[in-house]
Amino acid sequence: MTKTMNTKILDCTIRDGGLVNNWDFSVEFVRDMYASLSEAGVEYMEIGYKNSPKLLKGADAGPWRFLDEAFMKEVIPQKTHTKLSALVDIGRVDENDILPREQSSLDLIRVACYINDVDKGIALADKFHQLGYETTLNIMALSHAMENELTEALQEIAQSNTDIVYIVDSYGSLLPNDIAYLTTKFQRLVPNKTLGVHMHNNMQMAFANTLIGVNQGVTFVDTSVFGMGRAAGNCPTELALSQLKNPRYEVRPVLGFIEKHMLSMRERWEWGYIIPYMITGMLDEHPRSAMALRASDDSDKYVEYYDRLTTPEVSFSQNK
Amino acid sequence: MTKTMNTKILDCTIRDGGLVNNWDFSVEFVRDMYASLSEAGVEYMEIGYKNSPKLLKGADAGPWRFLDEAFMKEVIPQKTHTKLSALVDIGRVDENDILPREQSSLDLIRVACYINDVDKGIALADKFHQLGYETTLNIMALSHAMENELTEALQEIAQSNTDIVYIVDSYGSLLPNDIAYLTTKFQRLVPNKTLGVHMHNNMQMAFANTLIGVNQGVTFVDTSVFGMGRAAGNCPTELALSQLKNPRYEVRPVLGFIEKHMLSMRERWEWGYIIPYMITGMLDEHPRSAMALRASDDSDKYVEYYDRLTTPEVSFSQNK
Repeated sequence: MTKTMNTKILDCTIRDGGLVNNWDFSVEFVRDMYASLSEAGVEYMEIGYKNSPKLLKGADAGPWRFLDEAFMKEVIPQKTHTKLSALVDIGRVDENDILPREQSSLDLIRVACYINDVDKGIALADKFHQLGYETTLNIMALSHAMENELTEALQEIAQSNTDIVYIVDSYGSLLPNDIAYLTTKFQRLVPNKTLGVHMHNNMQMAFANTLIGVNQGVTFVDTSVFGMGRAAGNCPTELALSQLKNPRYEVRPVLGFIEKHMLSMRERWEWGYIIPYMITGMLDEHPRSAMALRASDDSDKYVEYYDRLTTPEVSFSQNK
Repeated sequence: MTKTMNTKILDCTIRDGGLVNNWDFSVEFVRDMYASLSEAGVEYMEIGYKNSPKLLKGADAGPWRFLDEAFMKEVIPQKTHTKLSALVDIGRVDENDILPREQSSLDLIRVACYINDVDKGIALADKFHQLGYETTLNIMALSHAMENELTEALQEIAQSNTDIVYIVDSYGSLLPNDIAYLTTKFQRLVPNKTLGVHMHNNMQMAFANTLIGVNQGVTFVDTSVFGMGRAAGNCPTELALSQLKNPRYEVRPVLGFIEKHMLSMRERWEWGYIIPYMITGMLDEHPRSAMALRASDDSDKYVEYYDRLTTPEVSFSQNK
């Protein structure tokens, strides 16, 4: 049903799912995941963040939050055709930490940035490009971007060395028409770049929006196994594997991984279609207030929460 | 984001959700639901099946499976602008049970039929039409319909008195391109009918496909609160209310209903995105084998189940 056979799946369970469980994944879990994704034909696995512990609090986090080359080599001594990627945030990465690609386990480094930091994102991605990596620029919170800002940012990106540009639905607020609109705009303004989509599932739209993107010509799709990712989570890897047309894709290994690892993970940690995340999605807001609600004693007081977000005088101050 | 303000939401929680809990809904639950849906601006509530207990086993089922006029009057003595509907199956309804509309609580009677029974469906809907009801014909299992059968059936329907024709994704196997294809075909062959969609959520596509339908010009959308419906469930009412453009729609009352009633319901009964239902969706099969699996001791043996369905010599015999 989808047009292209050139799609590349990037599974970001360890990285984005780490935002759910503070990167508390065992080495066995990550090794099994790599083996399952490889067998399934998935092109990339994002094994964590390459931010620096010197620039970011979080000493209690699992090792996938601050990836170390020696550790990565120990976890995955022999790579298959499935490449490894890491995400970095602007201002949180120590560039001196990054080895040249031939000495690294990583093949792809992705730079996440908001639209008003796109110049910094381009500069950072350029450094990784010079070190031999494939690079992406992931433009977050596009639902809050003004048209003129986005046009300018895309014009800058068109001149950059970045290989791949991602449309990121940070708040899970985009609908199919929005995806069609954004991909068309990106294709017009950065025709020389490969496009990707990273969708969130607040309104049960992550897989649908991903398919719409692929139908529009997007190449890279971010997924996570059983949808594990911050708040409402992501486009499930198993759904992408089952429906994207590529003779190499096999859903079976990922079903086995879910059976072995993800049911118990989901019992310990929460993500997915949960009403407070649906509410931030429909209101086009960051999920942080919903995450705080879920961690509180009022986790299921939906109407009270909805009223708080929609009544101006009592709404959160931090809702951008 | 959606084109039309003429959409009509038909909430079928009691009817389709009854397939999950054997219609074990209390009168208080149904009354609260009617009040919430009315306040939310929902146009129709499907209060159950109007099949006959004489023609169908199920004496242990709740009263919403075999609706009785005196009982409906007792439950909802005073209707608001939210109309009431009931579904009937061919061969399971005793036409002598059906009062003329002016003596009934029901406004709409919907006839569910497979494509090879469309002549019977038309005849039955015609009887309800003559009794003064609004009528729909819900064509099930369209993903298994051959093109020539469908064309013939639609030509018959075009000549009938049925007001509304539904595209039903019984197996939750349809993707956006399929919805676009089917709505276009229906619009061409039954241009004189109002269209509806009833989508299932096996691949997290129920809401997305519903929106695609609305964008294509479909008027009636079936939803259920918190997605409650057989197997993977339906398009959630709360999502439809939050995104369809209609100044009358308010999501807040339905959030309150979920908080009060649906969390405990979901703890007692299972529906939604569960891997065996995802598997029947991706394989375009009836969910009954997955429902049997979930009721067994092997409920989470996904790979074994997947192998059973995909290895010809051991697959279920009843997978149509």
